[in-house]
Amino acid sequence: MKIAAFQMHAVAGDVEANLSKIAKAASDAAAGGAALLITPELSIPGYGAGDEFAALASSADGWVGERLDAIAREAGIAVLAGFAEQDGASVYNSVLFTDGNGARAVYRKSHLYGDYEHQRFRGAPPASVLLPFGGLTLGMLICYDVEFPENVRRLALEGTDLIMVATALPRGASGAFIAEHLIRVRAFESQVFVAYINHCGADNHFAYAGLSQIAAPDGSLLAKAGAEDEALLIAEIRPQDYAQSRAENTYLADLAGSAARTSR
Amino acid sequence: MKIAAFQMHAVAGDVEANLSKIAKAASDAAAGGAALLITPELSIPGYGAGDEFAALASSADGWVGERLDAIAREAGIAVLAGFAEQDGASVYNSVLFTDGNGARAVYRKSHLYGDYEHQRFRGAPPASVLLPFGGLTLGMLICYDVEFPENVRRLALEGTDLIMVATALPRGASGAFIAEHLIRVRAFESQVFVAYINHCGADNHFAYAGLSQIAAPDGSLLAKAGAEDEALLIAEIRPQDYAQSRAENTYLADLAGSAARTSR
Repeated sequence: MKIAAFQMHAVAGDVEANLSKIAKAASDAAAGGAALLITPELSIPGYGAGDEFAALASSADGWVGERLDAIAREAGIAVLAGFAEQDGASVYNSVLFTDGNGARAVYRKSHLYGDYEHQRFRGAPPASVLLPFGGLTLGMLICYDVEFPENVRRLALEGTDLIMVATALPRGASGAFIAEHLIRVRAFESQVFVAYINHCGADNHFAYAGLSQIAAPDGSLLAKAGAEDEALLIAEIRPQDYAQSRAENTYLADLAGSAARTSR
Repeated sequence: MKIAAFQMHAVAGDVEANLSKIAKAASDAAAGGAALLITPELSIPGYGAGDEFAALASSADGWVGERLDAIAREAGIAVLAGFAEQDGASVYNSVLFTDGNGARAVYRKSHLYGDYEHQRFRGAPPASVLLPFGGLTLGMLICYDVEFPENVRRLALEGTDLIMVATALPRGASGAFIAEHLIRVRAFESQVFVAYINHCGADNHFAYAGLSQIAAPDGSLLAKAGAEDEALLIAEIRPQDYAQSRAENTYLADLAGSAARTSR
């Protein structure tokens, strides 16, 4: 399966501008043969929307779901986008997946980062949202979630082939380290694909690191964007190409340690 | 505290040759101001000793302990070395720490790798051996153990500052990835120091990757050896220099997810 990832310079607080960018990327990705488009964290309101998140929030089957369904249906491609999710009195930092034909899934960020998020969102308990699509099992995480090996491990043990990570990674030393080393180690240590899709550019709150990437189970990169500009990455996800890596790096099977094997 | 690490070309099965190399490195490390010398996995028998491990095995307070105590005492430096540990009918892949003045600790590898090890050693259940030394808390892992984030996380949550990893990493694509990316991510994601000390050269069984390294909590490298030759690395371990990294990367505090924080 071919997937696409849109490294995006979102306009903070301008939902129409951001939905237009996502619709254009969906159309381009479908034209490039991709069956799925992944966009960054809070791509619909913009990660920098700050105090506007509450006003721009929607339930998954409210206007966000309707608009994203229409984009997916018109372009003929599944889409993952980030949104502020209203649920009663709570607002979550969530992603919505839709195939445009009635299949939808929602994941809520479990590991909020910093005061900016804690002041505006409710954190969800860690949870696995697994999704069969294109012959693969997809999982979802958001930004800081993926920096915890525990979250990737849980999804991998549950059978995920590809983890879609919508992120908003800021520039700086920690951001550079995460983009240069950490994401590909998450893929390698649990032998999964990790698509890590970031914002670029800046808004009133943050400057973003770009460097979106799609990492394979052997730790190699199938695609990587630059630091500065918007980019549409396309990569083919072929688990069957990584049999040697799985045979050499049997982390999931050996997780409990050697005690069990020596009791044979 | 200054620590030293000896990337070593061990002579498979030649205990006297290997103890001589370790004694020389201990003396050089002490002369360089180090308080601790770390050597590779099975550095005393040589990782390639194969079917000789059983004959070269010793209990921790047998000849291995006596010889390593003498090296440490004479050089005036604590030493960590790898040995085949006899315990009744079982042989473990272990490391022995001694300060030369009566303080000793033993750690047994929990995650054996591949048939070569499974056929010759008994795996131990995952365990934490913590050791106060030079104002720090030291922990120990062996080779494949450190590739599991769970083992490093456990030691970090228990208060370890520096994890001493004796290893025997072979050349190849996976080895290169581990040396280039994985070790420093282990340090970063749990905000600890990781000293990862490998063999170099080759024996009848394996060719080793070298690339021994001492990684800091921010993922930077304090010292790194080349791929080919023996090397003595020396680095200063100063946790107080990484306050900014700990403040930005609060993985240990945030591990359980955001649910707890949002209930404030």
